[in-house]
Amino acid sequence: MRAREIAVVLASGGMDSCVTAAMASRRYALALLHVNYGQRTQRRELQAFRKIADFYEVPGDLRLVLNVEHFRLIGGSSLTDRRMAVPKADLGRRGVPSTYVPFRNANILAMAISWAEVIGAKRVFIGAMEEDCSGYPDCRESFFKDFNRAVARGTRPGSGIRVEIPIIHMTKADIIRWGMKHAVPFHLTWSCYTSNGLKACGVCDSCALRRRGFRQAGFEDPVRYDHR
Amino acid sequence: MRAREIAVVLASGGMDSCVTAAMASRRYALALLHVNYGQRTQRRELQAFRKIADFYEVPGDLRLVLNVEHFRLIGGSSLTDRRMAVPKADLGRRGVPSTYVPFRNANILAMAISWAEVIGAKRVFIGAMEEDCSGYPDCRESFFKDFNRAVARGTRPGSGIRVEIPIIHMTKADIIRWGMKHAVPFHLTWSCYTSNGLKACGVCDSCALRRRGFRQAGFEDPVRYDHR
Repeated sequence: MRAREIAVVLASGGMDSCVTAAMASRRYALALLHVNYGQRTQRRELQAFRKIADFYEVPGDLRLVLNVEHFRLIGGSSLTDRRMAVPKADLGRRGVPSTYVPFRNANILAMAISWAEVIGAKRVFIGAMEEDCSGYPDCRESFFKDFNRAVARGTRPGSGIRVEIPIIHMTKADIIRWGMKHAVPFHLTWSCYTSNGLKACGVCDSCALRRRGFRQAGFEDPVRYDHR
Repeated sequence: MRAREIAVVLASGGMDSCVTAAMASRRYALALLHVNYGQRTQRRELQAFRKIADFYEVPGDLRLVLNVEHFRLIGGSSLTDRRMAVPKADLGRRGVPSTYVPFRNANILAMAISWAEVIGAKRVFIGAMEEDCSGYPDCRESFFKDFNRAVARGTRPGSGIRVEIPIIHMTKADIIRWGMKHAVPFHLTWSCYTSNGLKACGVCDSCALRRRGFRQAGFEDPVRYDHR
Protein backbone atom coordinates (compact mmCIF):
# COMPACT_ATOMS: atom_id res chain seq x y z
CA MET A 1 0.00 0.00 0.00
CA ARG A 2 1.17 3.49 -0.78
CA ALA A 3 0.68 5.90 2.05
CA ARG A 4 -1.14 8.52 -0.01
CA GLU A 5 -3.64 8.50 -2.84
CA ILE A 6 -2.12 8.87 -6.28
CA ALA A 7 -2.85 11.70 -8.71
CA VAL A 8 -1.83 11.55 -12.37
CA VAL A 9 -0.35 14.88 -13.50
CA LEU A 10 0.14 15.71 -17.17
CA ALA A 11 3.69 17.02 -17.25
CA SER A 12 4.84 18.58 -20.50
CA GLY A 13 8.09 19.86 -19.06
CA GLY A 14 6.71 23.41 -19.12
CA MET A 15 6.26 25.76 -16.17
CA ASP A 16 2.46 25.55 -15.94
CA SER A 17 2.40 21.79 -15.57
CA CYS A 18 5.35 21.94 -13.18
CA VAL A 19 3.48 24.33 -10.88
CA THR A 20 0.41 22.08 -11.24
CA ALA A 21 2.53 19.09 -10.16
CA ALA A 22 3.79 21.07 -7.18
CA MET A 23 0.20 21.84 -6.18
CA ALA A 24 -0.87 18.20 -6.58
CA SER A 25 2.14 16.96 -4.60
CA ARG A 26 0.94 18.77 -1.47
CA ARG A 27 -1.91 16.29 -1.19
CA TYR A 28 -1.17 13.32 -3.46
CA ALA A 29 1.62 10.98 -4.47
CA LEU A 30 2.56 12.04 -8.02
CA ALA A 31 2.24 9.87 -11.12
CA LEU A 32 3.67 11.89 -14.01
CA LEU A 33 2.56 11.37 -17.60
CA HIS A 34 4.47 12.89 -20.49
CA VAL A 35 3.31 12.72 -24.09
CA ASN A 36 5.67 13.01 -27.05
CA TYR A 37 3.37 13.89 -29.88
CA GLY A 38 5.78 14.93 -32.58
CA GLN A 39 5.98 18.55 -31.47
CA ARG A 40 9.12 20.36 -32.61
CA THR A 41 10.66 20.55 -29.17
CA GLN A 42 9.86 17.06 -27.94
CA ARG A 43 13.47 16.16 -27.22
CA ARG A 44 13.96 19.23 -25.05
CA GLU A 45 10.60 18.82 -23.33
CA LEU A 46 11.31 15.19 -22.47
CA GLN A 47 14.60 16.22 -20.90
CA ALA A 48 12.77 18.81 -18.81
CA PHE A 49 10.15 16.22 -17.82
CA ARG A 50 12.83 13.82 -16.56
CA LYS A 51 14.52 16.48 -14.48
CA ILE A 52 11.22 17.57 -12.97
CA ALA A 53 10.29 13.95 -12.18
CA ASP A 54 13.68 13.52 -10.47
CA PHE A 55 13.18 16.75 -8.53
CA TYR A 56 9.87 15.48 -7.15
CA GLU A 57 11.35 11.99 -6.56
CA VAL A 58 8.69 10.24 -8.60
CA PRO A 59 9.40 6.47 -8.65
CA GLY A 60 9.91 4.74 -11.99
CA ASP A 61 6.59 2.89 -11.98
CA LEU A 62 4.77 6.21 -11.61
CA ARG A 63 6.42 7.83 -14.65
CA LEU A 64 4.95 7.14 -18.05
CA VAL A 65 6.24 8.52 -21.35
CA LEU A 66 3.97 7.88 -24.32
CA ASN A 67 5.00 8.36 -27.92
CA VAL A 68 2.02 9.16 -30.08
CA GLU A 69 2.26 9.60 -33.80
CA HIS A 70 -1.29 10.57 -34.53
CA PHE A 71 -1.04 14.34 -34.17
CA ARG A 72 1.84 14.38 -36.61
CA LEU A 73 0.01 12.12 -39.06
CA ILE A 74 -3.24 14.05 -38.69
CA GLY A 75 -1.47 17.39 -39.09
CA GLY A 76 -3.27 20.72 -39.01
CA SER A 77 -0.98 22.44 -36.49
CA SER A 78 2.23 24.40 -36.84
CA LEU A 79 3.50 22.65 -33.70
CA THR A 80 3.57 19.24 -35.38
CA ASP A 81 3.57 20.01 -39.12
CA ARG A 82 7.05 20.97 -40.29
CA ARG A 83 5.60 22.60 -43.41
CA MET A 84 3.82 25.23 -41.31
CA ALA A 85 5.80 28.01 -39.60
CA VAL A 86 5.39 28.73 -35.88
CA PRO A 87 4.27 32.37 -35.79
CA LYS A 88 6.06 35.02 -33.77
CA ALA A 89 4.20 36.15 -30.69
CA ASP A 90 1.20 38.43 -31.06
CA LEU A 91 -0.45 38.36 -27.67
CA GLY A 92 -3.36 40.49 -28.89
CA ARG A 93 -4.22 38.06 -31.69
CA ARG A 94 -7.78 36.73 -31.82
CA GLY A 95 -9.16 33.43 -33.08
CA VAL A 96 -7.60 29.98 -33.03
CA PRO A 97 -3.80 30.20 -33.52
CA SER A 98 -1.95 27.91 -35.94
CA THR A 99 -0.20 26.28 -32.99
CA TYR A 100 -3.54 24.79 -31.92
CA VAL A 101 -3.36 20.98 -32.17
CA PRO A 102 -6.93 19.88 -32.88
CA PHE A 103 -8.59 18.37 -29.78
CA ARG A 104 -5.18 17.71 -28.25
CA ASN A 105 -6.23 18.05 -24.64
CA ALA A 106 -9.03 15.54 -25.06
CA ASN A 107 -6.60 13.04 -26.57
CA ILE A 108 -4.02 13.52 -23.85
CA LEU A 109 -6.58 13.50 -21.06
CA ALA A 110 -8.09 10.28 -22.42
CA MET A 111 -4.66 8.63 -22.13
CA ALA A 112 -4.27 9.97 -18.60
CA ILE A 113 -7.72 8.69 -17.60
CA SER A 114 -6.89 5.21 -18.94
CA TRP A 115 -3.71 5.18 -16.89
CA ALA A 116 -5.47 6.53 -13.80
CA GLU A 117 -8.06 3.78 -14.08
CA VAL A 118 -5.39 1.07 -14.20
CA ILE A 119 -3.26 2.42 -11.32
CA GLY A 120 -6.26 3.38 -9.19
CA ALA A 121 -5.71 7.16 -9.22
CA LYS A 122 -8.81 9.25 -8.63
CA ARG A 123 -7.46 12.55 -9.88
CA VAL A 124 -5.88 13.72 -13.13
CA PHE A 125 -4.30 17.18 -13.01
CA ILE A 126 -3.75 19.29 -16.10
CA GLY A 127 -2.10 22.71 -16.09
CA ALA A 128 -4.42 24.40 -18.55
CA MET A 129 -4.88 28.18 -18.26
CA GLU A 130 -7.59 30.15 -19.97
CA GLU A 131 -5.40 33.26 -20.21
CA ASP A 132 -2.71 31.64 -22.32
CA CYS A 133 -4.96 29.55 -24.43
CA SER A 134 -7.99 31.68 -24.96
CA GLY A 135 -7.76 30.75 -28.63
CA TYR A 136 -7.60 27.01 -27.93
CA PRO A 137 -11.15 25.68 -27.52
CA ASP A 138 -10.05 22.67 -25.45
CA CYS A 139 -8.36 24.87 -22.82
CA ARG A 140 -11.47 26.41 -21.30
CA GLU A 141 -13.09 25.50 -18.03
CA SER A 142 -16.37 24.67 -19.77
CA PHE A 143 -14.63 22.03 -21.86
CA PHE A 144 -13.16 20.34 -18.80
CA LYS A 145 -16.55 20.34 -17.07
CA ASP A 146 -18.17 18.55 -19.99
CA PHE A 147 -15.22 16.22 -20.31
CA ASN A 148 -15.54 15.28 -16.65
CA ARG A 149 -19.13 14.19 -17.24
CA ALA A 150 -17.93 11.88 -20.00
CA VAL A 151 -15.22 10.54 -17.66
CA ALA A 152 -17.75 9.76 -14.94
CA ARG A 153 -19.88 7.84 -17.46
CA GLY A 154 -17.12 6.18 -19.40
CA THR A 155 -14.93 4.71 -16.68
CA ARG A 156 -15.47 1.70 -14.45
CA PRO A 157 -18.33 2.26 -11.99
CA GLY A 158 -16.89 3.66 -8.77
CA SER A 159 -13.61 4.73 -10.36
CA GLY A 160 -14.32 8.24 -9.07
CA ILE A 161 -11.83 9.76 -11.51
CA ARG A 162 -11.99 13.51 -12.01
CA VAL A 163 -9.90 15.99 -13.98
CA GLU A 164 -8.58 18.88 -11.87
CA ILE A 165 -7.60 22.25 -13.35
CA PRO A 166 -6.14 24.20 -10.42
CA ILE A 167 -4.53 27.02 -12.45
CA ILE A 168 -7.28 27.51 -15.03
CA HIS A 169 -8.11 31.06 -13.87
CA MET A 170 -4.64 32.14 -12.74
CA THR A 171 -2.48 34.50 -14.74
CA LYS A 172 1.07 33.63 -15.66
CA ALA A 173 2.28 36.11 -13.04
CA ASP A 174 0.07 34.47 -10.36
CA ILE A 175 1.51 31.09 -11.23
CA ILE A 176 5.06 32.36 -11.02
CA ARG A 177 4.42 34.04 -7.67
CA TRP A 178 2.88 30.84 -6.26
CA GLY A 179 5.75 28.80 -7.68
CA MET A 180 8.48 31.07 -6.29
CA LYS A 181 6.86 30.86 -2.87
CA HIS A 182 6.72 27.06 -3.04
CA ALA A 183 10.17 26.34 -4.45
CA VAL A 184 9.02 25.20 -7.88
CA PRO A 185 12.11 24.39 -10.00
CA PHE A 186 11.47 26.87 -12.82
CA HIS A 187 15.08 26.44 -13.93
CA LEU A 188 14.24 22.87 -15.01
CA THR A 189 11.17 23.81 -17.08
CA TRP A 190 10.98 24.46 -20.82
CA SER A 191 8.29 26.53 -22.52
CA CYS A 192 9.67 27.43 -25.96
CA TYR A 193 7.75 26.16 -29.01
CA THR A 194 10.73 26.13 -31.37
CA SER A 195 14.14 25.62 -29.73
CA ASN A 196 15.65 22.29 -28.70
CA GLY A 197 18.87 23.92 -27.56
CA LEU A 198 20.25 25.55 -24.45
CA LYS A 199 18.50 28.85 -25.09
CA ALA A 200 14.80 29.46 -25.73
CA CYS A 201 13.88 31.49 -28.83
CA GLY A 202 12.30 34.30 -26.83
CA VAL A 203 9.90 35.26 -29.61
CA CYS A 204 7.25 32.52 -29.97
CA ASP A 205 3.89 32.92 -28.16
CA SER A 206 4.94 30.60 -25.38
CA CYS A 207 8.23 32.42 -24.71
CA ALA A 208 6.48 35.78 -24.87
CA LEU A 209 3.83 34.75 -22.34
CA ARG A 210 6.46 33.34 -19.99
CA ARG A 211 8.69 36.41 -20.18
CA ARG A 212 5.79 38.79 -19.65
CA GLY A 213 4.70 36.70 -16.65
CA PHE A 214 8.11 36.85 -14.97
CA ARG A 215 8.29 40.60 -15.65
CA GLN A 216 4.86 41.18 -14.14
CA ALA A 217 5.59 38.99 -11.14
CA GLY A 218 8.87 40.79 -10.54
CA PHE A 219 11.16 37.74 -10.68
CA GLU A 220 14.04 36.88 -12.94
CA ASP A 221 13.41 34.00 -15.35
CA PRO A 222 16.18 31.42 -14.90
CA VAL A 223 15.81 30.29 -18.55
CA ARG A 224 18.16 31.91 -21.09
CA TYR A 225 16.84 33.42 -24.32
CA ASP A 226 18.27 33.91 -27.78
CA HIS A 227 16.52 37.24 -28.28
CA ARG A 228 16.68 39.53 -25.30
CA MET B 1 -14.34 20.01 -53.85
CA ARG B 2 -15.68 16.59 -53.02
CA ALA B 3 -19.28 16.09 -54.04
CA ARG B 4 -20.46 14.89 -50.63
CA GLU B 5 -19.73 15.73 -47.04
CA ILE B 6 -17.19 13.47 -45.38
CA ALA B 7 -17.84 11.29 -42.35
CA VAL B 8 -15.04 9.66 -40.38
CA VAL B 9 -15.93 6.05 -39.51
CA LEU B 10 -13.98 4.08 -36.92
CA ALA B 11 -13.32 0.80 -38.69
CA SER B 12 -11.84 -1.98 -36.60
CA GLY B 13 -12.25 -4.59 -39.30
CA GLY B 14 -15.13 -6.15 -37.36
CA MET B 15 -18.70 -6.61 -38.52
CA ASP B 16 -20.30 -3.90 -36.40
CA SER B 17 -18.08 -1.14 -37.72
CA CYS B 18 -18.44 -2.51 -41.24
CA VAL B 19 -22.23 -2.24 -41.04
CA THR B 20 -21.80 1.23 -39.53
CA ALA B 21 -19.61 2.22 -42.50
CA ALA B 22 -22.25 0.88 -44.87
CA MET B 23 -24.87 3.03 -43.13
CA ALA B 24 -22.67 6.13 -43.25
CA SER B 25 -21.84 5.57 -46.92
CA ARG B 26 -25.47 6.03 -47.91
CA ARG B 27 -25.18 9.70 -47.06
CA TYR B 28 -21.49 10.60 -46.72
CA ALA B 29 -18.16 10.07 -48.41
CA LEU B 30 -16.25 7.69 -46.12
CA ALA B 31 -13.02 8.48 -44.31
CA LEU B 32 -11.96 5.29 -42.51
CA LEU B 33 -9.85 5.35 -39.37
CA HIS B 34 -8.25 2.18 -38.03
CA VAL B 35 -6.38 2.03 -34.75
CA ASN B 36 -3.74 -0.60 -33.99
CA TYR B 37 -3.52 -0.52 -30.24
CA GLY B 38 -1.54 -3.63 -29.48
CA GLN B 39 -4.54 -5.94 -29.35
CA ARG B 40 -3.70 -9.60 -29.96
CA THR B 41 -5.33 -9.75 -33.37
CA GLN B 42 -4.11 -6.44 -34.78
CA ARG B 43 -2.47 -8.00 -37.83
CA ARG B 44 -5.65 -9.82 -38.83
CA GLU B 45 -7.85 -6.80 -38.09
CA LEU B 46 -5.69 -4.50 -40.21
CA GLN B 47 -5.98 -6.92 -43.11
CA ALA B 48 -9.77 -6.91 -42.72
CA PHE B 49 -9.75 -3.09 -42.54
CA ARG B 50 -7.84 -2.83 -45.84
CA LYS B 51 -10.19 -5.18 -47.63
CA ILE B 52 -13.23 -3.31 -46.34
CA ALA B 53 -11.72 0.04 -47.40
CA ASP B 54 -11.09 -1.41 -50.86
CA PHE B 55 -14.64 -2.74 -51.02
CA TYR B 56 -16.04 0.73 -50.32
CA GLU B 57 -13.49 2.33 -52.69
CA VAL B 58 -12.15 4.70 -50.04
CA PRO B 59 -9.33 6.81 -51.55
CA GLY B 60 -5.88 6.71 -49.96
CA ASP B 61 -6.07 10.19 -48.44
CA LEU B 62 -9.24 9.19 -46.60
CA ARG B 63 -7.73 6.11 -44.96
CA LEU B 64 -5.76 6.55 -41.78
CA VAL B 65 -4.08 3.79 -39.78
CA LEU B 66 -2.76 4.86 -36.39
CA ASN B 67 -0.39 2.79 -34.29
CA VAL B 68 -0.81 3.59 -30.64
CA GLU B 69 1.30 2.03 -27.95
CA HIS B 70 -0.35 3.50 -24.93
CA PHE B 71 -2.97 0.85 -24.24
CA ARG B 72 -0.28 -1.82 -24.26
CA LEU B 73 1.96 0.26 -21.99
CA ILE B 74 -0.88 1.17 -19.66
CA GLY B 75 -2.14 -2.43 -19.53
CA GLY B 76 -5.12 -3.52 -17.48
CA SER B 77 -6.87 -5.49 -20.23
CA SER B 78 -6.61 -9.08 -21.43
CA LEU B 79 -6.88 -7.79 -25.00
CA THR B 80 -3.57 -5.97 -24.81
CA ASP B 81 -1.74 -7.59 -21.90
CA ARG B 82 -0.21 -10.92 -22.94
CA ARG B 83 0.08 -11.99 -19.31
CA MET B 84 -3.72 -12.01 -18.93
CA ALA B 85 -5.81 -14.73 -20.62
CA VAL B 86 -8.76 -13.87 -22.84
CA PRO B 87 -11.70 -15.63 -21.14
CA LYS B 88 -13.98 -18.05 -22.95
CA ALA B 89 -17.41 -16.70 -23.71
CA ASP B 90 -19.94 -16.40 -20.93
CA LEU B 91 -22.70 -14.26 -22.34
CA GLY B 92 -24.56 -14.20 -19.04
CA ARG B 93 -21.56 -12.75 -17.18
CA ARG B 94 -22.09 -9.52 -15.23
CA GLY B 95 -19.69 -6.71 -14.41
CA VAL B 96 -16.78 -5.30 -16.42
CA PRO B 97 -15.05 -8.12 -18.37
CA SER B 98 -11.23 -8.47 -18.43
CA THR B 99 -11.26 -7.63 -22.15
CA TYR B 100 -12.32 -4.06 -21.28
CA VAL B 101 -9.58 -1.63 -22.30
CA PRO B 102 -9.88 1.29 -19.88
CA PHE B 103 -11.52 4.34 -21.53
CA ARG B 104 -10.61 2.97 -24.96
CA ASN B 105 -13.53 4.47 -26.83
CA ALA B 106 -12.78 7.95 -25.51
CA ASN B 107 -9.17 7.63 -26.67
CA ILE B 108 -10.09 6.38 -30.11
CA LEU B 109 -12.89 8.91 -30.53
CA ALA B 110 -10.56 11.73 -29.56
CA MET B 111 -8.21 10.70 -32.38
CA ALA B 112 -11.13 10.54 -34.79
CA ILE B 113 -12.35 14.00 -33.74
CA SER B 114 -8.86 15.46 -34.29
CA TRP B 115 -8.78 13.99 -37.78
CA ALA B 116 -12.35 15.11 -38.52
CA GLU B 117 -11.43 18.64 -37.51
CA VAL B 118 -8.45 18.70 -39.88
CA ILE B 119 -10.26 17.21 -42.90
CA GLY B 120 -13.47 19.15 -42.28
CA ALA B 121 -15.71 16.18 -41.52
CA LYS B 122 -18.76 16.96 -39.39
CA ARG B 123 -19.60 13.40 -38.38
CA VAL B 124 -17.70 10.63 -36.65
CA PHE B 125 -19.41 7.22 -36.72
CA ILE B 126 -18.65 4.48 -34.22
CA GLY B 127 -20.22 1.02 -34.27
CA ALA B 128 -20.76 0.68 -30.54
CA MET B 129 -23.63 -1.51 -29.35
CA GLU B 130 -25.01 -1.59 -25.86
CA GLU B 131 -26.02 -5.26 -26.16
CA ASP B 132 -22.49 -6.53 -26.78
CA CYS B 133 -20.75 -4.23 -24.44
CA SER B 134 -23.09 -3.89 -21.55
CA GLY B 135 -20.10 -4.41 -19.28
CA TYR B 136 -17.98 -1.74 -20.99
CA PRO B 137 -18.83 1.64 -19.46
CA ASP B 138 -17.68 3.60 -22.54
CA CYS B 139 -20.07 1.73 -24.85
CA ARG B 140 -23.32 3.17 -23.55
CA GLU B 141 -25.45 5.82 -25.19
CA SER B 142 -25.19 8.05 -22.10
CA PHE B 143 -21.40 8.12 -22.44
CA PHE B 144 -21.56 9.21 -26.08
CA LYS B 145 -24.07 11.94 -25.21
CA ASP B 146 -21.74 13.41 -22.62
CA PHE B 147 -18.75 12.98 -24.90
CA ASN B 148 -20.55 14.91 -27.64
CA ARG B 149 -20.96 17.85 -25.28
CA ALA B 150 -17.21 17.87 -24.71
CA VAL B 151 -16.65 17.67 -28.47
CA ALA B 152 -18.88 20.67 -29.10
CA ARG B 153 -16.92 22.66 -26.51
CA GLY B 154 -13.47 21.41 -27.30
CA THR B 155 -13.29 21.78 -31.08
CA ARG B 156 -12.90 24.88 -33.24
CA PRO B 157 -16.01 27.10 -33.06
CA GLY B 158 -18.35 26.11 -35.89
CA SER B 159 -16.68 22.75 -36.48
CA GLY B 160 -20.11 21.16 -35.95
CA ILE B 161 -18.55 17.76 -35.28
CA ARG B 162 -20.80 15.12 -33.73
CA VAL B 163 -20.34 11.47 -32.87
CA GLU B 164 -23.02 9.21 -34.38
CA ILE B 165 -23.91 5.79 -32.95
CA PRO B 166 -26.43 4.34 -35.42
CA ILE B 167 -26.36 0.74 -34.13
CA ILE B 168 -26.22 1.45 -30.40
CA HIS B 169 -29.64 -0.09 -29.70
CA MET B 170 -29.60 -2.80 -32.36
CA THR B 171 -29.04 -6.47 -31.57
CA LYS B 172 -26.40 -8.48 -33.38
CA ALA B 173 -29.18 -10.23 -35.30
CA ASP B 174 -30.68 -6.85 -36.36
CA ILE B 175 -27.28 -5.72 -37.61
CA ILE B 176 -26.79 -8.90 -39.59
CA ARG B 177 -30.26 -8.64 -41.14
CA TRP B 178 -29.66 -5.00 -42.13
CA GLY B 179 -26.24 -5.90 -43.48
CA MET B 180 -27.46 -8.86 -45.55
CA LYS B 181 -30.13 -6.66 -47.07
CA HIS B 182 -27.57 -3.99 -47.97
CA ALA B 183 -24.79 -6.20 -49.32
CA VAL B 184 -22.37 -5.63 -46.43
CA PRO B 185 -19.22 -7.74 -47.08
CA PHE B 186 -19.38 -9.84 -43.90
CA HIS B 187 -16.89 -12.27 -45.48
CA LEU B 188 -14.21 -9.56 -45.20
CA THR B 189 -14.81 -8.79 -41.51
CA TRP B 190 -12.99 -10.22 -38.50
CA SER B 191 -14.42 -10.36 -34.99
CA CYS B 192 -12.31 -12.90 -33.09
CA TYR B 193 -10.36 -11.64 -30.05
CA THR B 194 -7.63 -14.30 -30.20
CA SER B 195 -6.89 -15.71 -33.66
CA ASN B 196 -4.70 -14.11 -36.33
CA GLY B 197 -5.15 -17.04 -38.70
CA LEU B 198 -7.61 -18.16 -41.34
CA LYS B 199 -10.10 -19.46 -38.81
CA ALA B 200 -11.65 -17.62 -35.86
CA CYS B 201 -11.44 -19.32 -32.46
CA GLY B 202 -15.19 -19.61 -32.09
CA VAL B 203 -15.11 -19.53 -28.30
CA CYS B 204 -14.19 -15.99 -27.19
CA ASP B 205 -16.98 -13.52 -26.30
CA SER B 206 -16.73 -11.79 -29.64
CA CYS B 207 -16.99 -15.03 -31.65
CA ALA B 208 -19.84 -16.26 -29.46
CA LEU B 209 -21.84 -13.04 -29.95
CA ARG B 210 -21.28 -13.11 -33.69
CA ARG B 211 -22.26 -16.76 -34.04
CA ARG B 212 -25.38 -16.34 -31.94
CA GLY B 213 -26.32 -13.28 -34.03
CA PHE B 214 -26.04 -15.17 -37.32
CA ARG B 215 -28.00 -18.07 -35.86
CA GLN B 216 -30.77 -15.75 -34.64
CA ALA B 217 -30.88 -13.83 -37.92
CA GLY B 218 -31.11 -17.07 -39.88
CA PHE B 219 -28.06 -16.54 -42.09
CA GLU B 220 -24.86 -18.50 -42.49
CA ASP B 221 -21.70 -16.80 -41.19
CA PRO B 222 -19.12 -16.71 -44.00
CA VAL B 223 -16.26 -16.75 -41.46
CA ARG B 224 -14.78 -20.16 -40.61
CA TYR B 225 -14.31 -21.28 -37.01
CA ASP B 226 -11.88 -23.60 -35.26
CA HIS B 227 -14.49 -24.87 -32.84
CA ARG B 228 -17.82 -25.72 -34.42
